[in-house]
Amino acid sequence: MALLEDLKWRYATKRMDGQTVPQEKLDYILEAARYAPSSSGLQPYKIFVVKNGKTLEQLKDFVFNNHPFNQNQIADCSHLLVWAAWDQYTDERVGNVLRNTSTKRNLPIDSSEDYKQRLLNLYESLGKEWQENHTAKQAHISYGLAIAAAAEQKVDATPMEGFDNTKMDEFLGLNQSGLKSVVILPIGYRDKENDWLVKLKKWRTPKEEFITEIK
Amino acid sequence: MALLEDLKWRYATKRMDGQTVPQEKLDYILEAARYAPSSSGLQPYKIFVVKNGKTLEQLKDFVFNNHPFNQNQIADCSHLLVWAAWDQYTDERVGNVLRNTSTKRNLPIDSSEDYKQRLLNLYESLGKEWQENHTAKQAHISYGLAIAAAAEQKVDATPMEGFDNTKMDEFLGLNQSGLKSVVILPIGYRDKENDWLVKLKKWRTPKEEFITEIK
Repeated sequence: MALLEDLKWRYATKRMDGQTVPQEKLDYILEAARYAPSSSGLQPYKIFVVKNGKTLEQLKDFVFNNHPFNQNQIADCSHLLVWAAWDQYTDERVGNVLRNTSTKRNLPIDSSEDYKQRLLNLYESLGKEWQENHTAKQAHISYGLAIAAAAEQKVDATPMEGFDNTKMDEFLGLNQSGLKSVVILPIGYRDKENDWLVKLKKWRTPKEEFITEIK
Repeated sequence: MALLEDLKWRYATKRMDGQTVPQEKLDYILEAARYAPSSSGLQPYKIFVVKNGKTLEQLKDFVFNNHPFNQNQIADCSHLLVWAAWDQYTDERVGNVLRNTSTKRNLPIDSSEDYKQRLLNLYESLGKEWQENHTAKQAHISYGLAIAAAAEQKVDATPMEGFDNTKMDEFLGLNQSGLKSVVILPIGYRDKENDWLVKLKKWRTPKEEFITEIK
C-alpha cells in the first residue's frame, strides 16, 4: 500500500521551510520522472532543474500569485523542476529515439524506419497544435510520477502550472531547443507551522462518483 | 526505492494471459488514480471500468491495431480502464468540487465562490479547446499513477491511446455526461512465453540528455 499511502500523505504544499533536498533524493525523483511511460516511448520532454539561489530569484516573478492565499513556494523551496515538452514531432527527434531503442534491443536499426514514418504521417495529419498538446500530455504522466516519487522520499512538492510560459521559455533558452515549458514543481519541505493548507483535510471526488463499472 | 523499481519492472505489455486481477488489486489501482493531484483539485475526469467478457468483446474493435506487431491486450486483459475527461469547465462542475472541498475542510461554503469565479473567467478566456486539453492533461497525471499502482501490485498494464474516441464515447454514453475518452489501460498479467516485448530491454533517454541543471 506504499504508493497510496504516499499519495494520501502528500498535499500541494503552500509554504516550505527552506531546507535543501539531498542530492540522492533529487536524483531519485528525476529518475522516476525519466522512467515514466510515454506514447511510443518517445519521451517528448525534458526536465530543467533550478536550485534555490540567485537563478531562482530571477525566475520567481514568472510565477503568478493569483491564488486566493499567498504562495511562496518558489522562494522557500529547495529546487524547482520545470518540465519542457517538444514543440512538435520531427523526423530527427522521433528517429533518434527509435534508433536508440532498436540499438539497445539489438534489433536492426532500420527496423524502426517504417514505424517512424507511420508515426510522423499520423502526427503531421493531426497538426502542430495537436502535437504540442500531445507532448505536454506525455509530460504530465512523468510529472505525476515525480510527485509520487517525492512523496515516497518524504519530500514535499507543489504542482503548479500558473506561470508565464513565454518568460520561462526565454529565461531557460527553450525556444532555440524547440521546447516549451509545461508545468513546474517546487520541491522541498513543508513548513508545518506556517502552511495554512497542511492542517486542512484532503478532499477527493467520492469513489462511487469517480468510478463507473460498465456491466 | 520501491516506486523506481516498480517503474523499471513494468513495460507496455503486448500480450496478457487472460488471468483475472483480484478485486482488491483493482480497487487499489483505482484508489491511486483517484488520489492523483489535479489543477485546483478539480479532478476533471472519471474512470470507466470494463471487465473482460461480453462488453469488452464489443469494445475491442474500437482499438486500432496499427502497431507494427499485433496487439491483443484488449482480448486477453482482465479489465479495461478508460479515463474520460470533462469536455469543458462549467459553473456547476467547478462549483460542486469547490463546495465539497470547503465543506470537508469546515470552511464557509461561500469562501470558495470568489475562487470559482476567478477560475471560470480564466478558463473561459482560454477557450473550449484549451479546456478540453487541460482536463485531458490532468487525466494523464492520474493515468500515470494508476500505471505505477498496478506495477506496485505486480499487475501488468498497457498504456494505450490509439482507439476510436468517437465510438468509445458513444459506447460508454459519454456525450450525455459531457465527457470525452482520453486514454485506456488494459490491466492483467503478462504472457511471458508469447509476449515479444517482455524479453527486450527498456530504453530511456540518457539522464544527461533528459536533465538540464541550470547554474
